[in-house]
Amino acid sequence: MRRLTRVLGGYISGTDVRSSVAGHELGIGDLDAVPGIVEKHLAQFFDERGPAISAIGEPVAEAVAHLRAFVLGGGKRVRPRYGWAGFVGAGGLATSEDPDAVLRAMSSLELIQACALVHDDIIDASDTRRGNPTVHRSVEAQHRKQDMLGDATAYGINTAILLGDLALAWAEDMWRYSGVSLEALTRAAEPWVGMRTEVIGGQLLDISLEGRGSESVDLADRVNRFKTAAYTIERPLHLGAAVAGADDATISAFRGYGRDIGIAFQLRDDLLGVFGDPAITGKPAGDDLREGKRTVLFATALELLDRDAAAELRAGVGTATEPEEIARLAALIRGSGAEDAVEARISSLTASGLAHLDHAGISDEAKHALTVMARKATDRRM
Amino acid sequence: MRRLTRVLGGYISGTDVRSSVAGHELGIGDLDAVPGIVEKHLAQFFDERGPAISAIGEPVAEAVAHLRAFVLGGGKRVRPRYGWAGFVGAGGLATSEDPDAVLRAMSSLELIQACALVHDDIIDASDTRRGNPTVHRSVEAQHRKQDMLGDATAYGINTAILLGDLALAWAEDMWRYSGVSLEALTRAAEPWVGMRTEVIGGQLLDISLEGRGSESVDLADRVNRFKTAAYTIERPLHLGAAVAGADDATISAFRGYGRDIGIAFQLRDDLLGVFGDPAITGKPAGDDLREGKRTVLFATALELLDRDAAAELRAGVGTATEPEEIARLAALIRGSGAEDAVEARISSLTASGLAHLDHAGISDEAKHALTVMARKATDRRM
Repeated sequence: MRRLTRVLGGYISGTDVRSSVAGHELGIGDLDAVPGIVEKHLAQFFDERGPAISAIGEPVAEAVAHLRAFVLGGGKRVRPRYGWAGFVGAGGLATSEDPDAVLRAMSSLELIQACALVHDDIIDASDTRRGNPTVHRSVEAQHRKQDMLGDATAYGINTAILLGDLALAWAEDMWRYSGVSLEALTRAAEPWVGMRTEVIGGQLLDISLEGRGSESVDLADRVNRFKTAAYTIERPLHLGAAVAGADDATISAFRGYGRDIGIAFQLRDDLLGVFGDPAITGKPAGDDLREGKRTVLFATALELLDRDAAAELRAGVGTATEPEEIARLAALIRGSGAEDAVEARISSLTASGLAHLDHAGISDEAKHALTVMARKATDRRM
Repeated sequence: MRRLTRVLGGYISGTDVRSSVAGHELGIGDLDAVPGIVEKHLAQFFDERGPAISAIGEPVAEAVAHLRAFVLGGGKRVRPRYGWAGFVGAGGLATSEDPDAVLRAMSSLELIQACALVHDDIIDASDTRRGNPTVHRSVEAQHRKQDMLGDATAYGINTAILLGDLALAWAEDMWRYSGVSLEALTRAAEPWVGMRTEVIGGQLLDISLEGRGSESVDLADRVNRFKTAAYTIERPLHLGAAVAGADDATISAFRGYGRDIGIAFQLRDDLLGVFGDPAITGKPAGDDLREGKRTVLFATALELLDRDAAAELRAGVGTATEPEEIARLAALIRGSGAEDAVEARISSLTASGLAHLDHAGISDEAKHALTVMARKATDRRM
């Protein structure tokens, strides 16, 4: 097996962090150890890029510091966790792949996620994320503080566009030169290629449905499938299983689980976006109604309501702002039967997703861990 | 040699376009045939991605059509041209690399360029590019025409941010699965990793110098080095030579040429941005002064002028709008001696750049072609 880690001179040193994290002893049961290891790999990656960035110029290093703070500043590391679960669950620890390199490769998913979030926060004009200012807002604040020339808001956005681009390019580098074997990278080519097109395409679909005022259940379902399910669960599991050298049937079982549980996860999110308790979710009640999101829940309600009630819901979504207006829209959706329909679909997807795990190629330990993760994802209040 | 082209099922068919373009007979003398071949490869790539995009949803296919029109709608294909020159000039045609696959790999540079231009046009708030509306503007126009919901301007920008991201992700795919051997991709890993960080970092530096009102010749020089020279000439040549399996001395010669000629090219651009004839350049006279660009020319003039004249130039750049004000600023720069200094630097860089070509590993035909390209790049009026 050949590894590319060492060919890149100053760019990627490939220093092994195994000694500090005991990566080679991690099993599927240690999924909770994954975030810590991922953060070590990400910090190390930024450290390694430091000299190349400083060579371009100190102002660039200052900009990249915003990206680094964002990447290391929180997040549940869900995608690397599923990637690792796919690898270990398909028997990867019994192969000659270096487990620490696999964890490094999976950490790159957090850089794709950084690009997605930094750019989404510009698109949604969001001021905060994880309780901190979004990247474009924190750069804007620096512009004001340093009394720089030009428009501070535009400067924040422009810098954040470029920092998102950098995160996307770096995700490729971190994935490709993680130390995973070339054979494993070749096996994982299809999910890697698919995943990136799916998440960006899913996000394009999402904003276009808002722009079109779409009422299609099918199209809302596709946003869930590509933007959430494929990108968050199905493809990370697929990547891990492919790196482990899993057979087609095992990969297909992981993907079936990921697709079903991923869609159920998003449907739960949609319910919380309308009926969630603000004291628990941390978001205002009915946030999705205020923002005019074209969710499956919303489209299903329109299908079920009579003409007048549908017209009222349609007119209110994306325009209503008062708490009593929002509460009225939520009541319309609940009264339509859409909430029950979506709850039933979550139950059915959870059952079919878990049924996929009854496959000989998936270890019992992995089945147990993925069952726990599925329950957490689909049966939650925040 | 193993190639990855065929592993990706529906994503990349790897159909050989050689039959239609006679790629295997192309020599360095046929550099003018490169753009046509590059466009065929790009069109084929978009065709191959069609089914995956339509599977996400028809609205996504409509959005991607804007990207496709932009990528195929013009451009001199400078980067693939230099990439091919590096490959052929280092003896690549005598290796077992498939020349058509190499041209496909080099075509991916146009997708990186698409991301850079689409995002730069958002950053610069540009309405037109190559005589057509910019991508964010053409999406905005479609939003208005179809009477969509929400703010048309924001919708254009948001869609264009995502289309740029897609172009960047696709550049990786097109490069990686072009059919070039894994050995060649491994040899080319360092310039590939370097180039993408350099162009994004160079652009970050550029906007930060404007925000800081920088007057540093050194920092302006670094923008030229990383954003223009490395990305446009040095790294494409490096990629081509690495794919061909060139030795370190040959690569170093190509890189020396690329760095010097690339910087000279940008310095010529800076002179045209202040003194260019609008009837020839197609841009308003003194465009760089109006926009407040922090060029080497501007920083050099500030160094050379006495205190009062420097203050006048400093105050006018980025704020003056009237033709007579712009003409006065241009006269200040000319009077300072900065124009002559920059002309002298262009001559010296052109000479040192060409001197790098006197290296045994570079073919005579390549030397001739690169000399012609250097003259065109550094001695032009538009």
